[in-house]
Amino acid sequence: METLSIGQEIVAACERLGRHSDDPDGLTVAYLGAAHRAVAADLKEEMAGAGLAVTVDAIGNVIGRRSCGRPGARTLITGSHFDTVRNGGRFDGRLGIVLPIALARHLNETGERLPFDLEIIAFAEEEGLRFASTFLGSSPLVGQFDASVLERTDAAGVRLADAMRDAGLDPAGIAGLRRDPGTVLGYYEVHIEQGPVLLAAGEALGVVTSIAGGVRHSCRVTGSAGHAGTVPMRLRHDAGTAAAEMVLALEERCSADPSATVVGTAGRFEVVRGATNVIPGECQFTIDLRGAADGPRDLALADVLRSCREIAARRGVLFESELTMNVPATPCTPAWVDALAAAVASLGRPAHRMPSGAGHDAMMMGRALPMAMLFVRCGNGGVSHSPHETMTAADAGQAAAATLAFWRGRGTAARDVPAKAQE
Amino acid sequence: METLSIGQEIVAACERLGRHSDDPDGLTVAYLGAAHRAVAADLKEEMAGAGLAVTVDAIGNVIGRRSCGRPGARTLITGSHFDTVRNGGRFDGRLGIVLPIALARHLNETGERLPFDLEIIAFAEEEGLRFASTFLGSSPLVGQFDASVLERTDAAGVRLADAMRDAGLDPAGIAGLRRDPGTVLGYYEVHIEQGPVLLAAGEALGVVTSIAGGVRHSCRVTGSAGHAGTVPMRLRHDAGTAAAEMVLALEERCSADPSATVVGTAGRFEVVRGATNVIPGECQFTIDLRGAADGPRDLALADVLRSCREIAARRGVLFESELTMNVPATPCTPAWVDALAAAVASLGRPAHRMPSGAGHDAMMMGRALPMAMLFVRCGNGGVSHSPHETMTAADAGQAAAATLAFWRGRGTAARDVPAKAQE
Repeated sequence: METLSIGQEIVAACERLGRHSDDPDGLTVAYLGAAHRAVAADLKEEMAGAGLAVTVDAIGNVIGRRSCGRPGARTLITGSHFDTVRNGGRFDGRLGIVLPIALARHLNETGERLPFDLEIIAFAEEEGLRFASTFLGSSPLVGQFDASVLERTDAAGVRLADAMRDAGLDPAGIAGLRRDPGTVLGYYEVHIEQGPVLLAAGEALGVVTSIAGGVRHSCRVTGSAGHAGTVPMRLRHDAGTAAAEMVLALEERCSADPSATVVGTAGRFEVVRGATNVIPGECQFTIDLRGAADGPRDLALADVLRSCREIAARRGVLFESELTMNVPATPCTPAWVDALAAAVASLGRPAHRMPSGAGHDAMMMGRALPMAMLFVRCGNGGVSHSPHETMTAADAGQAAAATLAFWRGRGTAARDVPAKAQE
Repeated sequence: METLSIGQEIVAACERLGRHSDDPDGLTVAYLGAAHRAVAADLKEEMAGAGLAVTVDAIGNVIGRRSCGRPGARTLITGSHFDTVRNGGRFDGRLGIVLPIALARHLNETGERLPFDLEIIAFAEEEGLRFASTFLGSSPLVGQFDASVLERTDAAGVRLADAMRDAGLDPAGIAGLRRDPGTVLGYYEVHIEQGPVLLAAGEALGVVTSIAGGVRHSCRVTGSAGHAGTVPMRLRHDAGTAAAEMVLALEERCSADPSATVVGTAGRFEVVRGATNVIPGECQFTIDLRGAADGPRDLALADVLRSCREIAARRGVLFESELTMNVPATPCTPAWVDALAAAVASLGRPAHRMPSGAGHDAMMMGRALPMAMLFVRCGNGGVSHSPHETMTAADAGQAAAATLAFWRGRGTAARDVPAKAQE
């Protein structure tokens, strides 16, 4: 296989899909909007052109299937999502769809058969942009679909269930999407790293060991508002500087974490009704804390919240926090991780193992299936969720080569053993 | 004089004026709005009822005059403003109008003559709420009026000059409001402290030594936005935590200032387009730095800006700041300060001398005239610019007694010496 040439094919496919956007100047593809339907139509065409049998399921996932010809063969599912965040990047999600399509086309040309049925799923929704319904595409396949999201409305007041019916989809069919784990070999996903780690390490590929769990808190500090000129420093209870000290405590604690895999972010920070000449009386900020394993993450969170309470007590302000999200970490399947690392190493360099700080469809699929994930270097300083997200064709080609090597080693074990038990 | 009874009269007058508001639930009186006109009408009535000769000048200041009967006597001007901030307090400004009116009424009853002509000016505008035109009422009297503000428009697009004409005022007459300093003894203002210093010190009255100058900067920190899960702590350039460190440097520097009269505030602080799961790429905050004297204030500012630049360099982010205001401090006239302190001490307690952190009409009037200012304790923790601003009748009565004692000692010097030279 010509890795550079297949890499160019993959990058070109991402560029083609990136033509469709809800906003003309960026790349925004919200579930079931016009751009989303256009991308789905393109994907059907790309899949059909690669000789795949194409179907669309009840939630709008576009599925291309390539049989290995052996009756009763189990299925290896691979894929990723084709919706985007607001003004996102061209490779986020789409890479994990077009890379296996390109490989399927290559396999058709060489006539090679894989030791399993291959299913490439272009998940219709993962980002939750329109309905705050993350993992809408993958959750039904592993029995994790939350039917209450069907009642959610978008910014225009449209219910999710109605939007699906308008698009010719069938909410009632979602329950039937659950796969029998006994028929599935596992799930494999290729994804752009969305961070600077591989770039900094000088590596094209990363083998994901675990998908970080995340915990989020919404925090509020209440002090005493006052005139910026008339209250001496020693008599102040400034909510803004108190909160500033808290977010620095978060940063310091995570930077010093012994596991070196904990990250903490105060992504929102605002003095409420702030004015230049008024001492802040209220400040709100968020804590987003992630770790490759839940233990170190939860220890860090406890330390940070304790620091916040100590800072508040010392400064005579009130600290309140509310847990708004708590998702446990999902370890990748160890035998699959090792196999993927061996496939990467077969290209000539030892595999770079790393946790994924972001959530992916693999996190959802990994709840019921063996799972592995390959990261591809993110250019441009590691910028993602942005139109400035880039990837080289050479790196995409390396990812395709590693994927094929990994696939060739899958499915050789006894096909009658249930998937989970096999690993 | 019954100090408690005159204090009750003063507090009741502030409560009466506080009935008029542009918003029904708060106290908002913007220049030339309906509430503003109603307050002006009430003030004319209060002044006339106290035997004062009432006029309204070209800018809308309501003036009550009480002659001492000596031909060629110079005038002591006292007063304050009757407009408010949005949702302000009942004593802010109004105290300095109704207190001398109550004293004039008292003097009429006792038949006492003061050694000068007394002029009580209710300044129509000081806060700048509607047209961002601070000191509109007082600046023409000392030749500091900036005619360009006449072209400013309010939120509804109404020009200041047109609003004045609609209210029957005469923009062309503003230039003629300038007073000949040779005819004026000086300016004296009573004002609620608007801070917690007197409350903390257990004193009813404060003698102002200087009105702090203020310098303001608008600051921006630019780092690198990134995914909150995928960028390790050591590879981040977080604009939010960088800015947090900067505002703590501001707080620390001002708290440790050797003059103990410098205060620094970051009243606005916001991660721009912040999202829970995104590392802040841009953060904006403001610096408001004040000092009783310009030297310590400017030293503190230089130190703070240097700290910000050092923090930015260490963290690999960009720090930019823009000077948006720079007003020098206005010292009160030393001989008047001493005389006012003696008047306060005559009530039984040594005078508490203190700077004013807020700007007042006295700051403007002090640019051309001898000037002194008396602060009255602010209740309720020192809260001001709020409907929760309070003052006791006992404290208001003490302020009236100190004011009368101070007045009795004024104007006994040669009446033909120009005001500035005399002090």
